[in-house]
Amino acid sequence: MKIAVLPGDGIGPEVTREAVRVIEALDLGIAMEEALVGGAAYKATGHPLPPETLALAQGCDAILFGAVGDPDCDALERHLRPEQAILGLRKELTLFANLRPARVFPGLENHSALRPEVAGAINLLIVRELNGDVYFGEKGFRTTATGEREGYDIMSYSESEVRRIAHVAFQAAQGRAKRLCSVDKANVLETSQLWRDVVIEVSKDYPDVTLEHMYVDNAAMQLVRAPGKFDVVVTGNLFGDILSDQASMCVGSIGLLASASLGERQTDFGTFGLYEPIHGSAPDIAGQGLANPMATILSAAMLLRHSLGLGEAADRIEAAVAKTLSAGVLGRDLGGSAGTAEIGDAVLANL
Amino acid sequence: MKIAVLPGDGIGPEVTREAVRVIEALDLGIAMEEALVGGAAYKATGHPLPPETLALAQGCDAILFGAVGDPDCDALERHLRPEQAILGLRKELTLFANLRPARVFPGLENHSALRPEVAGAINLLIVRELNGDVYFGEKGFRTTATGEREGYDIMSYSESEVRRIAHVAFQAAQGRAKRLCSVDKANVLETSQLWRDVVIEVSKDYPDVTLEHMYVDNAAMQLVRAPGKFDVVVTGNLFGDILSDQASMCVGSIGLLASASLGERQTDFGTFGLYEPIHGSAPDIAGQGLANPMATILSAAMLLRHSLGLGEAADRIEAAVAKTLSAGVLGRDLGGSAGTAEIGDAVLANL
Ligand SMILES: CC(C)[C@H](C(=O)O)[C@@H](O)C(=O)O
Ligand SMILES: CC(C)[C@H](C(=O)O)[C@@H](O)C(=O)O
Repeated sequence: MKIAVLPGDGIGPEVTREAVRVIEALDLGIAMEEALVGGAAYKATGHPLPPETLALAQGCDAILFGAVGDPDCDALERHLRPEQAILGLRKELTLFANLRPARVFPGLENHSALRPEVAGAINLLIVRELNGDVYFGEKGFRTTATGEREGYDIMSYSESEVRRIAHVAFQAAQGRAKRLCSVDKANVLETSQLWRDVVIEVSKDYPDVTLEHMYVDNAAMQLVRAPGKFDVVVTGNLFGDILSDQASMCVGSIGLLASASLGERQTDFGTFGLYEPIHGSAPDIAGQGLANPMATILSAAMLLRHSLGLGEAADRIEAAVAKTLSAGVLGRDLGGSAGTAEIGDAVLANL
Repeated sequence: MKIAVLPGDGIGPEVTREAVRVIEALDLGIAMEEALVGGAAYKATGHPLPPETLALAQGCDAILFGAVGDPDCDALERHLRPEQAILGLRKELTLFANLRPARVFPGLENHSALRPEVAGAINLLIVRELNGDVYFGEKGFRTTATGEREGYDIMSYSESEVRRIAHVAFQAAQGRAKRLCSVDKANVLETSQLWRDVVIEVSKDYPDVTLEHMYVDNAAMQLVRAPGKFDVVVTGNLFGDILSDQASMCVGSIGLLASASLGERQTDFGTFGLYEPIHGSAPDIAGQGLANPMATILSAAMLLRHSLGLGEAADRIEAAVAKTLSAGVLGRDLGGSAGTAEIGDAVLANL
């Protein structure tokens, strides 16, 4: 079993370090190898996703990812910016299924801007497609008939792309409350119409799952009004980007939220995937030992479960984090004062 | 002065009726003429936006719009569905600037799913572009190289489209707290890169307005975390659809939220525009006198102010609505029991 560790930029290295310590402490015989990614890789090699990094990732069973994003790189051409590293990994490794569970840890209902009873009811999973949509279609600038500059991006989904993610979502729903909400904008977009048609077709294979369709504008409303009503939500890359971030913020403690991006390839132990905290590189607090590593530690737990078949070890990590939280060891993001290493130490002690 | 009244479907007719009564009561010498739109128009004429309706709208100074949407029409081909009426009006009449103010009426902070102190601080205006983006680009189905069906929609913005809406937004900010947040996804989309470049260019004409840029996923988070921090938000058609509905729900009382869609044409009294409540046609409660007409009445106030230069009459209507609310005359949407006509009567009495 081998994991590629890609710490990235900003607080990425410090939060990843704690997650690596946790994996090591469990003594599972997992090899780990680190490589550069994002702005850090650009600065060292001139490319945000160097070929060595991609090759390492390809050769492993899973990737533990920190965060990318570096203000020093804002003025670079698009293909050199740190974000291209994560987009490149998703595309090159066919990481098409982004799973973002969102639920409030007991006792932390007060950290949400939503009323505690609304936030406390949240227990949803967003399944976001990551390989298609307007993210990867042809794009560029062109000149209109009247001689003006115009920017354009082609949004599209093919049947097989939708089918693939729909199966992931229906199967996830089968393992939960058996309700799936597919989000689109079929009243305006043909891409969405195809999405909806295919989701309906796939639903025939899952008669035990209740399927509902919702327009994205309505979904954004319902995520505020009654987020507790959702079980699994499946949607495209762009709407998923927006709604999954919205849902995370509804939970209130984004320093605790993990994510998995799963591929098609099966490893010897599970499904190949990349695991990362949903928060970003937070350059403003980087290198100061202030960041909360819990989201990365919980991402490591997802990694063990989904890619390495180590569900029990994952459970142990999740229990240790819950225990640490209920012992009042809270990061600054949760109004506490515990630093990065201190939180890592506490989780290790609670393992 | 002449207004086209397009009641539309579901609760559209009943809420529009109350707004018309309010305008009539003010005795401003405004002519009003009604026409069919949406599912109602389709059922009567075979088209959701009949030529007579469009011609009437074109010949007036403003349009008072109810709502469109009718489950009977769900299975129709796209171009015959009720939603095409509003999309058609926006495009044919060049209604490019959608203004959606969102603020909590004093005393109604408890109707939001957000904590009262978070909701109570909301006082923002979303300026959404309505004539471009992925809504109106080429779209359709095609067959991929591997023989599968694919749905596609082209997203684009030209310089002049962005410039036009940017000016509206900067001017709106000048009349408010002088802060403008432009929302895009420039880290992924070229359409957004052009959007951002042009907004920066236009900002030079408004040195008194502070401009900020935010990615749409972050904006969806900040609208949950601290919606009170926004003053004016400007964004494209698709992101505006999502964020403006999210913002409305943050307020908590969508039965009170009005909107204006302004065109380029100046009338003798102001700017040509269409005014509608942000809620939909609510077919489940239609025809029962249960709907809250306040959002439509407040839309009529916006109409008088922006299209007819009758700011004082608009102020009177808004004051009457506020008085009605503080007298505890609340619709079912706000936990009260007042019906459509009862609310209309109360507003009339408070004029
Ligand atoms: C960095 C950016 C390209 C990325 C995305 O939009 O997918 C991020 O927002 C995410 O959600 O992982
Ligand atoms: C009905 C639909 C086409 C419309 C839109 O997406 O613009 C609606 O959601 C709105 O916001 O007015």
